[in-house]
Amino acid sequence: MTQSPQLSLFARRAAGQAIGDLMKVGVEHPDCLSLAAGFVDESGLPADLIRSSVCRILNGPDRQAVLQYGTTPGTAAVRSVFLRHLARLEDNPDVDRLSPDRIVLTTGSQQLLCLLTQALFEPGDICLVAAPTYFVYLGVLEAVGARVIPVPTDEDGLHPDGLEQTLQRLDAQGDLPRVRLVYAVSYYDNPAGVSIAANRREQIVRIVCRWADRCPVRLLEDAAYRELHYDGPELNSLWSYDESGQNVILTQTFSKSFSPGLRVGFSVLPDDLVRPVCDLKANEDFGSPRFSQAIMADVLEQGSAYADHVQQIRNRYRIRRDAMLAAADEYFSSMDGVSWRKPDGGLYVWMTLPESVQTGFDSPLFTHAVEACRVIYVPGELCYPSTWNERPANRMRLSFGVLPPEQIREGMRRLAQAVRDILEQSA
Amino acid sequence: MTQSPQLSLFARRAAGQAIGDLMKVGVEHPDCLSLAAGFVDESGLPADLIRSSVCRILNGPDRQAVLQYGTTPGTAAVRSVFLRHLARLEDNPDVDRLSPDRIVLTTGSQQLLCLLTQALFEPGDICLVAAPTYFVYLGVLEAVGARVIPVPTDEDGLHPDGLEQTLQRLDAQGDLPRVRLVYAVSYYDNPAGVSIAANRREQIVRIVCRWADRCPVRLLEDAAYRELHYDGPELNSLWSYDESGQNVILTQTFSKSFSPGLRVGFSVLPDDLVRPVCDLKANEDFGSPRFSQAIMADVLEQGSAYADHVQQIRNRYRIRRDAMLAAADEYFSSMDGVSWRKPDGGLYVWMTLPESVQTGFDSPLFTHAVEACRVIYVPGELCYPSTWNERPANRMRLSFGVLPPEQIREGMRRLAQAVRDILEQSA
Repeated sequence: MTQSPQLSLFARRAAGQAIGDLMKVGVEHPDCLSLAAGFVDESGLPADLIRSSVCRILNGPDRQAVLQYGTTPGTAAVRSVFLRHLARLEDNPDVDRLSPDRIVLTTGSQQLLCLLTQALFEPGDICLVAAPTYFVYLGVLEAVGARVIPVPTDEDGLHPDGLEQTLQRLDAQGDLPRVRLVYAVSYYDNPAGVSIAANRREQIVRIVCRWADRCPVRLLEDAAYRELHYDGPELNSLWSYDESGQNVILTQTFSKSFSPGLRVGFSVLPDDLVRPVCDLKANEDFGSPRFSQAIMADVLEQGSAYADHVQQIRNRYRIRRDAMLAAADEYFSSMDGVSWRKPDGGLYVWMTLPESVQTGFDSPLFTHAVEACRVIYVPGELCYPSTWNERPANRMRLSFGVLPPEQIREGMRRLAQAVRDILEQSA
Repeated sequence: MTQSPQLSLFARRAAGQAIGDLMKVGVEHPDCLSLAAGFVDESGLPADLIRSSVCRILNGPDRQAVLQYGTTPGTAAVRSVFLRHLARLEDNPDVDRLSPDRIVLTTGSQQLLCLLTQALFEPGDICLVAAPTYFVYLGVLEAVGARVIPVPTDEDGLHPDGLEQTLQRLDAQGDLPRVRLVYAVSYYDNPAGVSIAANRREQIVRIVCRWADRCPVRLLEDAAYRELHYDGPELNSLWSYDESGQNVILTQTFSKSFSPGLRVGFSVLPDDLVRPVCDLKANEDFGSPRFSQAIMADVLEQGSAYADHVQQIRNRYRIRRDAMLAAADEYFSSMDGVSWRKPDGGLYVWMTLPESVQTGFDSPLFTHAVEACRVIYVPGELCYPSTWNERPANRMRLSFGVLPPEQIREGMRRLAQAVRDILEQSA
């Protein structure tokens, strides 16, 4: 008989992430409409572009080189192409003159979040996050034993004064030396669809730079949704305000704007973090698939092909977002205490229910929604640090990324019915 | 001013892996012939097969599904195809009837080595390894703070009696509860080209199974080179002797037999390790690229296409191995105290020099070889635990995977010249 496995503390901390529960519900209830899935719109995925790109590459001079091992951060040629892409997004030709040595390619941007966190955190080290924030990253932080502290956040994102006050409080408590990161999803965030407002961006970076004189804090800017912009202002990255380039880590991915099946993410790192991240990545996988990276670089170099594709999916997602907002209006606006906001991009609408209605996995609403009304959502409480006592229990993340407009409308109708049933039961 | 980064202990332990030094030497001395590189033969990489496969997939019914997110261990369909492939390698149809739920797909097999080690090891936990062994895995073990203990090894691989005695010694010392893994590269290993002999395989598995009653030890079988078989006996996997399937972890990769640029590895895990490994992988990257996995599965399903390809590259590598052995004969056989052996597969010849000739990065030989004779090798000492006092200093790993036969011969000529020069200087 084999003994049950003795798992490391790291593995035990990583166990039981909420994403597992969510997927289980999805699998066990295939008849449900899912407003929970974080997938992208499959019907918009660029099969033809990728096929053309593969044919071009595999008939070209690098046809075998792209199938060989690469270097851990990705080949210099591909990193240069991604830097050029970033220069276009930033609308700043100087970006193209940065050293490609500061670019590291990963398996989606998720791998960068994970490697960077493993590189910086000892148990008890502190990460400041918006609340709510990206729940998968909360799991990564939990696995390294980080202390996660929410920073006051409103409809304009992370609040600069709140950030400053939080750092002052940590300083007064003697905890400043433990602060490692401020984590921010800067564009149309997961889960709330909130962007950090233009007039807060420079301020936030300045605060981090100032405190970085006294403690090893950096800002981790997760710009995963950056290119899914539908309306509202164009925003500069937080990273663009970091003059030295040594205080902000910028991470992006082509999973949302192009194809998650390729799993290509890239990041710009401060000089002194490139080596530690690459050391961990070398142990982990030597490097992410060169073939995927070569496809992505090839597509970016084909005139306006990539830009045209992104414009197309923006149009598709805008229609879906508007379908969700219209359905929210239609089915929820008559309910007291229900609110939501229009996101300018991304894939999510964040909805607040009356205080009395809890949304968690074990709540009457969740059970009723799944089992009777056949609709799934992401319970909002997942998006707050589990140790935070003040986390609201009456929020939901609703995704408009996966379902077509008419199913989004039907999903919202079912969800409103579920909420109404629960309100009536408790009345 | 930003403070220099405070890195985690984990990151500091992962720093300064030898692979970095090796790559640096390669980059700084492009005029050198490299017998060091662990790459595969680029000219044999299957560009046409992959192009056909991509066209088939991206014109087919799953054209967009393969570009979407998948599940963390890989889709069930692809895992089933890989299981069928394993059944063919094992020549055992029962394997095909195993649950695909025990298969986990990773970014090469390297990622499995890393995730599994992170899942099992606390600092001070013990891994038993052959000596010499795969040096990148030694780096992974070092990063988690593992205690690495070499087991007596000879030309027939890991010695069963040596393994038994090592476990008895650890038991007597009270260290048995800390033993987590026995790690073995079972076919044509990196670095020594040694396979565990047929008559030792069952014995080794039985020893591990027996001790597993008393401590949480498992056998990690790294079968990366399994399909690069040129001559000598066909060998059953160690895994095939594990009747319960709960004591041996088998990991394989398509990086050597097909294309490392796709980075597709797969493993069969004991039931109770699937979840912990997937939890860590979910934090790390959600899943390796589905597109690469779909290509690999498609190729495997195209009649004899994959088998034909593997036969072709075997023929090519056999010629290169023979070129290296012939050159060793030609240039080294007249030197006293130099020995090597013929590997039946894989990519490496392991050479022992006279005791007086050290081979390390800082040795006169290494410097002379690179700077004067323009040839690079892998110093053998990298392939032993750095804490092991008895590690021999006079070995080299020579790769015949990358260079064509005539350059292998020239590289060996240069290397023999370097050794002869050093012997003469010290005479």
